[in-house]
Amino acid sequence: MQPTKCDLIIKGSYILTQDEDRKLIKGGAVAISGSDISAVGISTEIESGWIADEVVDCGKSVIMPGLINSHTHVPMTLMRGVADDLPLLDWLHNYMFPIESGLTKDLVELGARIGCAEMIAGGTTAFIDGYMYEDMVGKAVDEAGMKAVLGEGFFKFPSPFFKTAQDAWDEIENLNAQFSENARIKTAITPHAVFTTDPDQLAESMEIAERMDLLWQIHAAESVPETELTLNTFGKRPVEILKEYGLLRERTRLHHCVDVTDEEIGWIMESGAMVAHNPQSNLKLGSGICPLTKLLEAGIHCGLGTDGAASNNNLDMFDEMRTAAMLQKGFLQNPEAMPAQTVLDMATVNGARFLGFEDTGALNTGMKADIIVINMDKMHLKPVYNPLSHAIYSAGGQDVCLTVCDGKVLYQNGKFSTLDVETISREAEKAVEWALRRLEKR
Amino acid sequence: MQPTKCDLIIKGSYILTQDEDRKLIKGGAVAISGSDISAVGISTEIESGWIADEVVDCGKSVIMPGLINSHTHVPMTLMRGVADDLPLLDWLHNYMFPIESGLTKDLVELGARIGCAEMIAGGTTAFIDGYMYEDMVGKAVDEAGMKAVLGEGFFKFPSPFFKTAQDAWDEIENLNAQFSENARIKTAITPHAVFTTDPDQLAESMEIAERMDLLWQIHAAESVPETELTLNTFGKRPVEILKEYGLLRERTRLHHCVDVTDEEIGWIMESGAMVAHNPQSNLKLGSGICPLTKLLEAGIHCGLGTDGAASNNNLDMFDEMRTAAMLQKGFLQNPEAMPAQTVLDMATVNGARFLGFEDTGALNTGMKADIIVINMDKMHLKPVYNPLSHAIYSAGGQDVCLTVCDGKVLYQNGKFSTLDVETISREAEKAVEWALRRLEKR
Repeated sequence: MQPTKCDLIIKGSYILTQDEDRKLIKGGAVAISGSDISAVGISTEIESGWIADEVVDCGKSVIMPGLINSHTHVPMTLMRGVADDLPLLDWLHNYMFPIESGLTKDLVELGARIGCAEMIAGGTTAFIDGYMYEDMVGKAVDEAGMKAVLGEGFFKFPSPFFKTAQDAWDEIENLNAQFSENARIKTAITPHAVFTTDPDQLAESMEIAERMDLLWQIHAAESVPETELTLNTFGKRPVEILKEYGLLRERTRLHHCVDVTDEEIGWIMESGAMVAHNPQSNLKLGSGICPLTKLLEAGIHCGLGTDGAASNNNLDMFDEMRTAAMLQKGFLQNPEAMPAQTVLDMATVNGARFLGFEDTGALNTGMKADIIVINMDKMHLKPVYNPLSHAIYSAGGQDVCLTVCDGKVLYQNGKFSTLDVETISREAEKAVEWALRRLEKR
Repeated sequence: MQPTKCDLIIKGSYILTQDEDRKLIKGGAVAISGSDISAVGISTEIESGWIADEVVDCGKSVIMPGLINSHTHVPMTLMRGVADDLPLLDWLHNYMFPIESGLTKDLVELGARIGCAEMIAGGTTAFIDGYMYEDMVGKAVDEAGMKAVLGEGFFKFPSPFFKTAQDAWDEIENLNAQFSENARIKTAITPHAVFTTDPDQLAESMEIAERMDLLWQIHAAESVPETELTLNTFGKRPVEILKEYGLLRERTRLHHCVDVTDEEIGWIMESGAMVAHNPQSNLKLGSGICPLTKLLEAGIHCGLGTDGAASNNNLDMFDEMRTAAMLQKGFLQNPEAMPAQTVLDMATVNGARFLGFEDTGALNTGMKADIIVINMDKMHLKPVYNPLSHAIYSAGGQDVCLTVCDGKVLYQNGKFSTLDVETISREAEKAVEWALRRLEKR
């Protein structure tokens, strides 16, 4: 039989397919046509069945689905490392807010471009965001060739960006219209948190989410101080408020859930709402350790996120997977807790469902070709017994040598094909001078 | 005035000197003559005062002291990823022991060479080890051009390597004699743990340490199950036994100290014994979370270690620094806990004292030229407000572009100058086949 024509074949020593059987293929290849995966299998079979314009042989390598970041604020890469090791309110009021209150659309776009470049180089192909001027984030994502869910944030008080929540909701309508023809970009209704909005406003925003059929995401139960603030204001805990106002639904995405009771875990599970786990940010901000094992055992669908680079301080999903796996083991004093496969699921197939991109997160015929490759020819990845173990426990984002999204090569061996990282870098240096001037004036 | 001649000048955007004032130099350079640092300062001053055979301009970069790994078992890189996510006894009895019982001198050397290559590429210049056939580790370290303290381990029961403890002590004498002329290599008396030796044997080994003026290192209080085993065998907790037998001394190095009481922390502090903190291994093996903040507040001198790659699963001290900083913040729900500077101290100046190499760990005139450089021209390290923050919270071992030990360039931009990594890699692949055959026969 004549081989079928395709656009691209990627070959490597192993494929972590993340298919239904979590099949590991030794000596595998993926055939890609347009934006889709045409076939996945052992190299000899793929190469006899398919003929491609371009074959990328990655040598000693692991091919796997692009990673999916279930919680971040990508423009905040602009504030990476501006302040650490501080009490939360000092960090917010003396560093984040003085810079954020002066952000322009151009600076938000710049932050998003830095973050997109970092994520692409580190093997992340999709993320869900929450920030301001999300049209600029969408512009950066579109340019970068990634996938994202854009969340225009709002509060009960006027922000530097919106006088009222209605202004924010108008912006969400605009945003949604702006990217309605772009299959790589979606939007989500994004109230900041229970304690920074009010329940009626939350309920109203959920109606918009229902009408527009959008995800509805919120920071929830991130820390004990958040719970105390919410109790002081409303007499109830954050997840209690969400339940009482009917805001725990299948379209609900809860970020963090560090300080949740067993009863609250039950409510979340019954509702079909999903949770994004952000272990490094939870540690770095002193929020605590999320009872992730309990959430998963209860049957809650969980994604994995980095949160913003100002509280992490990188967007490396490999780092995040390792921390997620190790932290539960140590916290529970149980080395069997949170095995490598569970963590990889959170960062791939589960992340895809979290974002509502159901056609990514696994390497199967007919899925979108969102694919990354780990270069295993590094001393910290030798020898190899189990590529899954190396992906979670030994590798880092910098081991990624190839990133493909919707069939398009975005990054290969240090070279970006969609982003001009030299210009981005120069602009980033200028932004530091601007930010430092803002901090001097505070 | 004529500039003075030196061998090498390294230039970069920043220097984290780790000197007494923890001075940060912007636009700095280090002049090196032979194995020593001749001068450290701003580039213009260094270049007007010194003329070098070779000038390495690292561009956008951070120059800092080589990192020091205060606890590892470097030949265990050979077992990286062979088994994870298992109960400790299953992991030991069904994976580690069946492989270890068949290890030859050549395999131990191979494991050490993989580990040394990984450490050099990741910016570690010195480590303290504990394993078997440490003469082979010494051979690998000498070849690699690194620094190490070699610890030939012993138990109360016959090991695959030694019938009796006396055999091990004879080997330590040999080992010490073998490397006595090599300033880069020292030895340490290395009983495995309280529960795998007996107190009289420990006391006898301490006499040898005193006579030979060597460090005396032991795993101590790594986990609650270890405490229970020790209580069952001796009726006392591990640190109680050490205190009772007079084994807490200035030359004592305790690895882990996860399960220690406040009283025990007091005893350790009073004795001048030092502790190596290994957060990633403690998490991954389910040992728990070390009360590091308490240890430091008590005044105990602490180093930072990776433990072996079989329980980590890499030897990346940047990973370890980030985890050490973040974990205490999350565990104590206090973002001010364990700031970046404290962690960098543990991995540099404090590590140097831990290993007994007092002339390294900081960049000062007259110190040994053990220097690494982080390449900051990466998207996950942009923009730069504070190079210290980036070193601890954003960077990884793979950002290292230059590693110098005793004035000799060991690694530069992916190239190793002392180790033949291609041969090492080929041998590592063969070792996997050997190990898998051992596991089949178990």
